[in-house]
Amino acid sequence: MNSFGNKFRISIFGESHGECVGITIDGCPAGLLISEEDLLEDLERRKGGKQKGTTPRQESDFPLFMSGLFNGKTTGFPITILFDNKNTRSDDYKNQRSIPRPGHADMTAHQKFGGYEDYRGGGHFSARLTTGLVAAGAIAKKIIPHIKITTHIKEIGGETDLEKGLQKAIDAKDSIGGIIECTVKGLPFGLGEPYFDSIESVLAHMIFSIPAVKGVEFGAGFSAAKMFGTEHNDSIINKDGKTKSNHAGGIVGGISNGNDLVFRIAIKPTSSTPKMQTSYNWDTNQMESFSIKGRHDLCVALRAPVIIEAVTAIVLVDFMQLEQKINRVLL
Amino acid sequence: MNSFGNKFRISIFGESHGECVGITIDGCPAGLLISEEDLLEDLERRKGGKQKGTTPRQESDFPLFMSGLFNGKTTGFPITILFDNKNTRSDDYKNQRSIPRPGHADMTAHQKFGGYEDYRGGGHFSARLTTGLVAAGAIAKKIIPHIKITTHIKEIGGETDLEKGLQKAIDAKDSIGGIIECTVKGLPFGLGEPYFDSIESVLAHMIFSIPAVKGVEFGAGFSAAKMFGTEHNDSIINKDGKTKSNHAGGIVGGISNGNDLVFRIAIKPTSSTPKMQTSYNWDTNQMESFSIKGRHDLCVALRAPVIIEAVTAIVLVDFMQLEQKINRVLL
Amino acid sequence: MNSFGNKFRISIFGESHGECVGITIDGCPAGLLISEEDLLEDLERRKGGKQKGTTPRQESDFPLFMSGLFNGKTTGFPITILFDNKNTRSDDYKNQRSIPRPGHADMTAHQKFGGYEDYRGGGHFSARLTTGLVAAGAIAKKIIPHIKITTHIKEIGGETDLEKGLQKAIDAKDSIGGIIECTVKGLPFGLGEPYFDSIESVLAHMIFSIPAVKGVEFGAGFSAAKMFGTEHNDSIINKDGKTKSNHAGGIVGGISNGNDLVFRIAIKPTSSTPKMQTSYNWDTNQMESFSIKGRHDLCVALRAPVIIEAVTAIVLVDFMQLEQKINRVLL
Amino acid sequence: MNSFGNKFRISIFGESHGECVGITIDGCPAGLLISEEDLLEDLERRKGGKQKGTTPRQESDFPLFMSGLFNGKTTGFPITILFDNKNTRSDDYKNQRSIPRPGHADMTAHQKFGGYEDYRGGGHFSARLTTGLVAAGAIAKKIIPHIKITTHIKEIGGETDLEKGLQKAIDAKDSIGGIIECTVKGLPFGLGEPYFDSIESVLAHMIFSIPAVKGVEFGAGFSAAKMFGTEHNDSIINKDGKTKSNHAGGIVGGISNGNDLVFRIAIKPTSSTPKMQTSYNWDTNQMESFSIKGRHDLCVALRAPVIIEAVTAIVLVDFMQLEQKINRVLL
Repeated sequence: MNSFGNKFRISIFGESHGECVGITIDGCPAGLLISEEDLLEDLERRKGGKQKGTTPRQESDFPLFMSGLFNGKTTGFPITILFDNKNTRSDDYKNQRSIPRPGHADMTAHQKFGGYEDYRGGGHFSARLTTGLVAAGAIAKKIIPHIKITTHIKEIGGETDLEKGLQKAIDAKDSIGGIIECTVKGLPFGLGEPYFDSIESVLAHMIFSIPAVKGVEFGAGFSAAKMFGTEHNDSIINKDGKTKSNHAGGIVGGISNGNDLVFRIAIKPTSSTPKMQTSYNWDTNQMESFSIKGRHDLCVALRAPVIIEAVTAIVLVDFMQLEQKINRVLL
Repeated sequence: MNSFGNKFRISIFGESHGECVGITIDGCPAGLLISEEDLLEDLERRKGGKQKGTTPRQESDFPLFMSGLFNGKTTGFPITILFDNKNTRSDDYKNQRSIPRPGHADMTAHQKFGGYEDYRGGGHFSARLTTGLVAAGAIAKKIIPHIKITTHIKEIGGETDLEKGLQKAIDAKDSIGGIIECTVKGLPFGLGEPYFDSIESVLAHMIFSIPAVKGVEFGAGFSAAKMFGTEHNDSIINKDGKTKSNHAGGIVGGISNGNDLVFRIAIKPTSSTPKMQTSYNWDTNQMESFSIKGRHDLCVALRAPVIIEAVTAIVLVDFMQLEQKINRVLL
Repeated sequence: MNSFGNKFRISIFGESHGECVGITIDGCPAGLLISEEDLLEDLERRKGGKQKGTTPRQESDFPLFMSGLFNGKTTGFPITILFDNKNTRSDDYKNQRSIPRPGHADMTAHQKFGGYEDYRGGGHFSARLTTGLVAAGAIAKKIIPHIKITTHIKEIGGETDLEKGLQKAIDAKDSIGGIIECTVKGLPFGLGEPYFDSIESVLAHMIFSIPAVKGVEFGAGFSAAKMFGTEHNDSIINKDGKTKSNHAGGIVGGISNGNDLVFRIAIKPTSSTPKMQTSYNWDTNQMESFSIKGRHDLCVALRAPVIIEAVTAIVLVDFMQLEQKINRVLL
Repeated sequence: MNSFGNKFRISIFGESHGECVGITIDGCPAGLLISEEDLLEDLERRKGGKQKGTTPRQESDFPLFMSGLFNGKTTGFPITILFDNKNTRSDDYKNQRSIPRPGHADMTAHQKFGGYEDYRGGGHFSARLTTGLVAAGAIAKKIIPHIKITTHIKEIGGETDLEKGLQKAIDAKDSIGGIIECTVKGLPFGLGEPYFDSIESVLAHMIFSIPAVKGVEFGAGFSAAKMFGTEHNDSIINKDGKTKSNHAGGIVGGISNGNDLVFRIAIKPTSSTPKMQTSYNWDTNQMESFSIKGRHDLCVALRAPVIIEAVTAIVLVDFMQLEQKINRVLL
């Protein structure tokens, strides 16, 4: 469903071209100083409006706190944040309603929700929904300031020279995918709740909820499948569990081992591409050629880092609370 | 924690060298004909005792049904299945207690559970626990007989010629990793519960609970990151959502689209390798060389297919029930 | 926490004197026609502003739909509804901050949330929060129009002549309690999910979340404790499970038996009473006399019926969905 | 379903005349010293075999620990406990299969589970299932030894002289109901998770899962409905929240206030009574007279105290863990 987490739980709502998108955060410790400003930097990074390869739509991403704050601090009760939707051009979508866009949820949502779904701009499936995630992530980061979560784009279109990868897409007038790597420093050992709630399990669960993610790997990941045991095994070198190498990506037995948490995410190319495509028109029962109107990113991977950081922070706060490493009331 | 699922929920318990390992299955429809025999084939596949590269330990894997069956049929109440532990050699482990094995949960479990964990044979982290998963999976498969879940080993040690990959490990006297591919045919469209319970999310969650899994990708997966949008997008060619290619792996917007569900899993090399390794002895506070005693697989990826099938079936039954495609009482 | 339900799940947020109170409803079937007007009658009943014995505060209870509707129908995605807070007089509360009001959550909230809670008007504990419940309940009722949920006030201040009971309170210038009875007609048999999610269990869980509820009994309830078995047992008289008497209140073994569901709820007197009271001033460390300022009901039981109906409808829709008696998409 | 709890979660399984009944406890802190003997006193109290008015069936209630213990201490992993079923007389039940016993789950279970339920001895609905609850409760009590949970029978058949109440039943050759009161001393303030997981809510949820419970009230409970506010309100008399009276039963705003937790439970008369009754025979489609064979209690309320204590302890441990008042590893 649309909620995630145990003791730090987020609930997401809204549609791309509806009134608003938003999020409710339940289980945030009381006493945390928060203001709109604390969220703006990450929200700005998500918009990426000035970046080459991202959508020119200027979304209104100012967070409206509707509950859970009093005198500038969290109360311990649910925090609901709204983002008004403005600057929408719904007509772009209406005209093409009967031609489900390849790679988009148009067809699956239509089948599952009987045609009642708000299809405009991707509705609930729109990347616009990640605004709430980023807001919740910014708050999560403030709860665990000593844990440093960083992400970088590792590849675009197979190129580690990202400028080059992006230029390929611009030249081809086509969208393109990428790989994001996330590193978490300062994570205490002992996080993770096996059997089923290993760190890998819960992080992957959350990450695969982000639109366009098609693969997740931890530490050596898919490369580990090619290794010998003695190559892959990380030799433990002190009593705190520090290891010589980090092929495990900081997780053994589903539990953090005190080393850096490292994982990578495969982002598929944006489904919306300016190029001509074909699909099945369910009104005319014929294949049809079309190109996608609207303002879209050539490479959603460019916006992904701050979203990955956000969901990572959200998951880690939950694990920290389960492990009683965060007080209910901050002092 | 140790339970997973919404309407079809499994709870796992037991330790490798304790009394037993087992599983409880809650939410199984009433009226399903089940006998021990129905489980034996998959349980035998999991054991893989006669296969080159798997452990020679002859585990007692006969399922003991303790509840939930009456007159040979499920009652709709929880099904608890036990597997007695026999043929254990716990002394192999006691001697080496203070040297946490690299790649194993020895160190993380010790830190998290304060030394109270049953360390013998890996305890709750042992691959032995997957016996219960395979049993639950065999039952899940019987609930959805029209859905065909198949797995194959795609690579061992980087070789698609599996015999060759395995021989590499035998020659090197080292353990080795592999890649499993799973394909599901006959899945109805409309499964998956976005925002957070996409098929990818829930499957990945469950799969990352299996020991030794370090990566999961759907459809084109990490390759998608190198593609252009027009390459990756699967053109829809009929009103049932059939697509020309299947780079999405059968899931769009987190929802099954009526095409084959396809995903791959990276299995790291078995942490237990016969080769000499070094680790930190927390009693002597010194690095120490040692080789792992006990009977271990050279390549756990060989046993993984039936486990992957099992957890896939478990997850799909849950999605099918959420989508009301399975009756509470079978007729 | 602040969410409740399995497949039909509500999440509540907001504080009495904050920006708004609100609710998010997840799992509502797609295709349900809903407008603000559909909610107004129940919202008006909750306000009870013109009724003798209810608060004169004119709350702004117009529902603002923020998500989940498209073309006037539900989309199958979360429905978030806000109610702006207006006409608040927070100063009434500030002056008396250090004297926790007997019967109110002032003291317990202060201890649990470290003083960060929004204490104004009871904050998150205010009866104002039930606005969201009533809104969700009105939607729930529309999903199951054939099930008739009615409530009546059975007693006020121990009097079945309610006018008389209320007059007692007015004469005494004191608040007063009451008993509500709820009857549900048309409930299908088979609802309820033992062992732990019996109808009684889940209904009681939800009902005890409503402020001022201190007792819940089903069918004969506490009277059953005085009966012989042959008196209490409801003789079954036809194949549909119709019973001669209904001491069980329509639930046997935690499962609906096809007869009327009947239960009663004890509502304590409003904690806020105009009379002089004493409490411990945590600033001065002295007992202090005071009378409660602000606008309050003499008898909250008067407003309770529509709230009880609402939570009952919410719980029943969830059970109906678990039992697959409601389609995901309404036709 | 058949699991309950957040961080301290129990899962129940088994049928009265099947192989066994049992329970799995997940989330028990590591390092707790437990032996079979620790459970026997409470298990013996539940059996009540020598008490006037309880069933003469001598059940085998010796707990078999199947997992989660190592060297006599809890490991932090799931604890599964089995109780073998012996001394069953299933034929008593078979003969009367088509006549659903009034007050029993025969009819509702039959309808819900399509006739596949194990009807012998009440199957999963049998009071035998409470054996697992009592075992889990005995463990829960050991986790919180400083919290004293006591219960007493307050009334039998409307008599506070219990001997007299019981004699009434013996004389009438009929079963009879009763009221149990539970008092918890030493509970810290601050437990309870509003909005929906108030102490009242969660305790009532669990208690209504116990067979034969038809009413729950906290503090003054139903009497509160007859009171004025100034009568009912508990005046706070010191900075720790100590109150002069305790009409709230130790809970305000759903949160423990540091005073004694007090609640009462209505237990209906045992459905099985030796007296002649009538019911509808679904084979012959006729009303039929019969008397219930088998060995049954005249008053299940006699066995209820230890069960009420057990579920109370289970719920309180979970709340204590949520409030971080119990460490994951005991020292």
